[in-house]
Amino acid sequence: MTAENQTKTFISPEDLLNNYLGHRGLTRRTIEAFPEEQFFSYSIGGMRPFAEMVMELLGIAAPGLKQIATGETPEFKEHFDHQNSKELILKLWDESTEEIKKYWSQIPANGWDQPISLFGQWEFPVYSQICYFLDNEIHHRGQAYVYLRSLGIEPPAFYER
Amino acid sequence: MTAENQTKTFISPEDLLNNYLGHRGLTRRTIEAFPEEQFFSYSIGGMRPFAEMVMELLGIAAPGLKQIATGETPEFKEHFDHQNSKELILKLWDESTEEIKKYWSQIPANGWDQPISLFGQWEFPVYSQICYFLDNEIHHRGQAYVYLRSLGIEPPAFYER
Repeated sequence: MTAENQTKTFISPEDLLNNYLGHRGLTRRTIEAFPEEQFFSYSIGGMRPFAEMVMELLGIAAPGLKQIATGETPEFKEHFDHQNSKELILKLWDESTEEIKKYWSQIPANGWDQPISLFGQWEFPVYSQICYFLDNEIHHRGQAYVYLRSLGIEPPAFYER
Repeated sequence: MTAENQTKTFISPEDLLNNYLGHRGLTRRTIEAFPEEQFFSYSIGGMRPFAEMVMELLGIAAPGLKQIATGETPEFKEHFDHQNSKELILKLWDESTEEIKKYWSQIPANGWDQPISLFGQWEFPVYSQICYFLDNEIHHRGQAYVYLRSLGIEPPAFYER
């Protein structure tokens, strides 16, 4: 690599994906830590139960990456038929993770800094959209840690990925 | 750029720094949103008050970047003389942001994927350490949002940077 190109790299797509998948595993363990009833109903200060936040995450990341990879604009969807079953949400979570890996591998080398209007609504470069997916997941999972602690449940270790 | 080098870039150091500084601004507004007393004392589920979390963040990011830039290993410090003053913590926060910008500009182009034993304790590549600084800040700020909501206070908009 030339010095010019080295200057341009903070993290490679492969390393960012690995970091992202580590976070998705931690979020999965956070979902698992909730008693099923509280996962769908427990709230502090009028905020959404963690299940609602997880459905927001399900609605953004995999559909967003599909748009980034294929160019087809999906509808933004925040609700899924979960039947109050944590197992069903975990299944959706795992399917979503597989889609993220699949579409990630289809994004061309020059695709990461291209502007994109995600869900036809928010225009930013691809890397910025993906950072938002990750930041938003960490943000809501941090909130779930408070829910768990206030239920007397120890959350999974934050630094374990 | 050749195709080979393009493959290696998800985000540039400049763009990651901008993303990071946007988050630091949001965390600053989150600190500002707390009433001074609750900032230092309010807790849910036995967790630390937000002031303690902010001191952890102050202890990690700027000292960590200083080590990355200069090679000098600092001691890990989680407590600062704050005199129960939010203004003092905000001053430390702003100084910390300035240090982050200063040391960021001193990290060489080939420095981002070098392994480093931060505070002499945790060995990972530099990009991974910095992702952790940011992830950890988002994680604790998300927790602060629950504290604020349970105090009846609206947190700053998450998507505004």
